[in-house]
Amino acid sequence: MRNSPIKSAQKTPLWQAIADALRSDMSEGRYAPGDKLPTEAALAERFGVNRHTVRHALAALVDEGLVRTRRGAGAFVAATPTDYPIGSRVRFHENLKAAGRRPAKRILHIETRAATAGEAQALQLAPGDPVCACHGLSLADGQPIAVYESVFPITRLPGIDVALTEETGVSAALARVGVADFTRTGTRMTAVRADATQALHLHLREGDPLLRTTGVNVDAGGVPVEYGRTCFAGDRVTLTVEG
Amino acid sequence: MRNSPIKSAQKTPLWQAIADALRSDMSEGRYAPGDKLPTEAALAERFGVNRHTVRHALAALVDEGLVRTRRGAGAFVAATPTDYPIGSRVRFHENLKAAGRRPAKRILHIETRAATAGEAQALQLAPGDPVCACHGLSLADGQPIAVYESVFPITRLPGIDVALTEETGVSAALARVGVADFTRTGTRMTAVRADATQALHLHLREGDPLLRTTGVNVDAGGVPVEYGRTCFAGDRVTLTVEG
Repeated sequence: MRNSPIKSAQKTPLWQAIADALRSDMSEGRYAPGDKLPTEAALAERFGVNRHTVRHALAALVDEGLVRTRRGAGAFVAATPTDYPIGSRVRFHENLKAAGRRPAKRILHIETRAATAGEAQALQLAPGDPVCACHGLSLADGQPIAVYESVFPITRLPGIDVALTEETGVSAALARVGVADFTRTGTRMTAVRADATQALHLHLREGDPLLRTTGVNVDAGGVPVEYGRTCFAGDRVTLTVEG
Repeated sequence: MRNSPIKSAQKTPLWQAIADALRSDMSEGRYAPGDKLPTEAALAERFGVNRHTVRHALAALVDEGLVRTRRGAGAFVAATPTDYPIGSRVRFHENLKAAGRRPAKRILHIETRAATAGEAQALQLAPGDPVCACHGLSLADGQPIAVYESVFPITRLPGIDVALTEETGVSAALARVGVADFTRTGTRMTAVRADATQALHLHLREGDPLLRTTGVNVDAGGVPVEYGRTCFAGDRVTLTVEG
């Protein structure tokens, strides 16, 4: 499977031409998500270049999130990240289905406790007011993509704790306690390192990059009904915002 | 500065009560950005708890981005991240000024080269068509907050390479080559690890989490004029989206 040596046309650096060739191979399905790429030596032979150039091309693909390297095991085609739209209506199940994925949520833990200062502010409660906190795992096609904590003002929404355990998803649980519809007032996003627990749940390494979002959902009257914090695995989800 | 021992009220775990107390200290300015926090031992003494509980509280604040730890040096109050709105009009200088920061850009490198497959698709060019690529550094109050690469269709925008070196910012450079206004068609966001070069420019460690955004700007007629990729330091910027 040796190609004729790639020559640099129009000043395209060699490593970029090789990255382009590998990108085409992936987009055409020659290498599928999860496939191991040929070794650096094999790629150098195929393209007729030295291993340094191959390494440069692979580094660019890693940077784009198309390829993942595992120490000692080589380079693998990354799974295509799931597009996840962020806006005034953020619905996990709808978002995943629109991306052609099978959505699932797994609740890890539900507790009623006092609101922290940040939660009280977000939910317009007094610090120490009781909230129902629901920790869980979001999955796409069976693969964990995010860990989340949803916090609900339980005095405003009596029964939300039971509804969360019995219904599938936040929308259904809120509907059961009388919140027919809700919208996001805004979303804040940053990048953080996975801690040990997050890494365990998401099958990542500790320190891997997570995309953390926080947002408040309000009912039709503008009253906060949920404060959500979600950490998405950086290599599995692309958040999208319409222009 | 010893407080009376914190007691857990309403089932708030002790570590959470301590995290809340430290959060208040920071929001009230008792500890300012950059300040070193007292040692774990001193905090344990102050709150009348063991060091394990203090460590748990600090870990929560680190996770929220309020505190940063440096190995061997202790825990420091993180600089307040800059809010950076993402929408149909994304303007670096305006965004920073609105956040009360002093914006600056430093161009690292400008080159004209062939478009990669991804760039050609984003800019509606043929692969290999020439583009002007501008690499740079964005700063807030003199601190680097992002590295970016902006790619321009130079055949559509002759003179953009010179304009970029002579004008301050992308808006001014585009205006000079005839693009009076432009809007973002959408933004895609994910979290990645800083590579060695990014870490160097951003004064981070290799592997630290970056928030990567990609977006296309189009002119009034909907023709792409810029394809931008930006990597923000995760601890210095919070991207915001209106609901």
